Amino acid sequence: MINVCIIGSGNVAFHLHQAFTRSKAIEVLQIFSRGPAAIQSADKVRIIDDYKDLTVADIYVIAVSDDAVPGVAKLLPFQDRLVVHTSGSVPLDALADKNRRGVFYPLQTFSKERALDLNKVPVCVEAERPEDLKTLSSLAKSISDNVHFIDSGQRKALHLAAVFVNNFVNHLYQIGSRLCERHNIPFEVLQPLIKETAQKIVSLSPEDAQTGPARRNDQKTIEKHLALLSEEKHKEVYQLLTETIQLHYGRKEL
Amino acid sequence: MINVCIIGSGNVAFHLHQAFTRSKAIEVLQIFSRGPAAIQSADKVRIIDDYKDLTVADIYVIAVSDDAVPGVAKLLPFQDRLVVHTSGSVPLDALADKNRRGVFYPLQTFSKERALDLNKVPVCVEAERPEDLKTLSSLAKSISDNVHFIDSGQRKALHLAAVFVNNFVNHLYQIGSRLCERHNIPFEVLQPLIKETAQKIVSLSPEDAQTGPARRNDQKTIEKHLALLSEEKHKEVYQLLTETIQLHYGRKEL
Repeated sequence: MINVCIIGSGNVAFHLHQAFTRSKAIEVLQIFSRGPAAIQSADKVRIIDDYKDLTVADIYVIAVSDDAVPGVAKLLPFQDRLVVHTSGSVPLDALADKNRRGVFYPLQTFSKERALDLNKVPVCVEAERPEDLKTLSSLAKSISDNVHFIDSGQRKALHLAAVFVNNFVNHLYQIGSRLCERHNIPFEVLQPLIKETAQKIVSLSPEDAQTGPARRNDQKTIEKHLALLSEEKHKEVYQLLTETIQLHYGRKEL
Repeated sequence: MINVCIIGSGNVAFHLHQAFTRSKAIEVLQIFSRGPAAIQSADKVRIIDDYKDLTVADIYVIAVSDDAVPGVAKLLPFQDRLVVHTSGSVPLDALADKNRRGVFYPLQTFSKERALDLNKVPVCVEAERPEDLKTLSSLAKSISDNVHFIDSGQRKALHLAAVFVNNFVNHLYQIGSRLCERHNIPFEVLQPLIKETAQKIVSLSPEDAQTGPARRNDQKTIEKHLALLSEEKHKEVYQLLTETIQLHYGRKEL
């Protein structure tokens, strides 16, 4: 049995608490939450709002906003215990070194409105000491089939890649949705295409999956599309991504 | 029973032939293919390579590259029959007006390597005459549960939107994949995130689903990310999409 205290009550804390609670190998002892706790907790889990009340646990999971991680780690009133954060963009050594440090980074987009099966979510773990890495790895395997050892340098790159395939991709969805709206087309018409685009790259590399006017170097269609875009920023996005695709496939010289 | 002749033997022709063949309401009479036919055909379907051999059918489906549509339509040696193309970016009136014209546009990304259930694929139909629209609509409903009446103006916008949510999104996947490669991270780590990002917008609008440093206006993370990108074009893409998101959410003035 791995005993855990969760520090934080945002989206990540919420989903981790749910997943930890579901696992028989883990016991959540306490949740630290400033202000009224957003996490509804039954059972034995105590919600506390004073660091001094933190009990002894195998792992302290800090699930707060990136900027708050170092400050929270410093405030912990103990030492030589295993303290991890859950952030993709924060290095391990942002944690105060009075404790044994680690990272427990579930790579997924979390929102409280959407139930999420953490089972398939990649959990990236890192620790300074081999025995701590083992504990973290056990914790991760208790909630996910998809555990990876990723160091701080790799995690930085992964977090950046996630911005491209999640945040930026979602913004392209939004541009698509806006175009539909403007022409009285239900956005639902695009959803099967969106789904298939995301599924395709499981069996085909994105490199091989690329299609479209930029890839074909179909200048006539590209110009028609640019003429159709009424927002200046959307034109710029269309132009830059077209150019980047053309450069990538060697159709255009810089 | 709707009788169909398919003209073309590319990806779209291939998948339509498969879907039509599966439907009891449709009979494919002939497939016209220049050169050796890529489509393996059993049964009664005849592969022909001379337009003069085209038999009488209810609908002639031209599934060739966008540029070739007008030329092929002109070459058909008959008139007053229902002739449709399958292209998102070609207007209805690109077809020769000696025949009754229509469009049968399945909005999906097709590759021969991937089996595809056309059942969920939106099929956008358009025709000049109400009775032809009815026939096309029956044809569409025989292979898909997702049929829409979309005129040429709307289809242009839809095709453009599809470039954003399919071609450009795939290119962002590729940038993500490249970043993984460079840091010895298996691309599989990103796939659950990619899948969830695509699924999220079925229940949440892309507007509401937006997260990330640009949305949060987290300048520190944005700068760290830019410093980490080694390719100039990827930096430009990061910057432009960040700016577009910030402008959209009113965090930045032009």
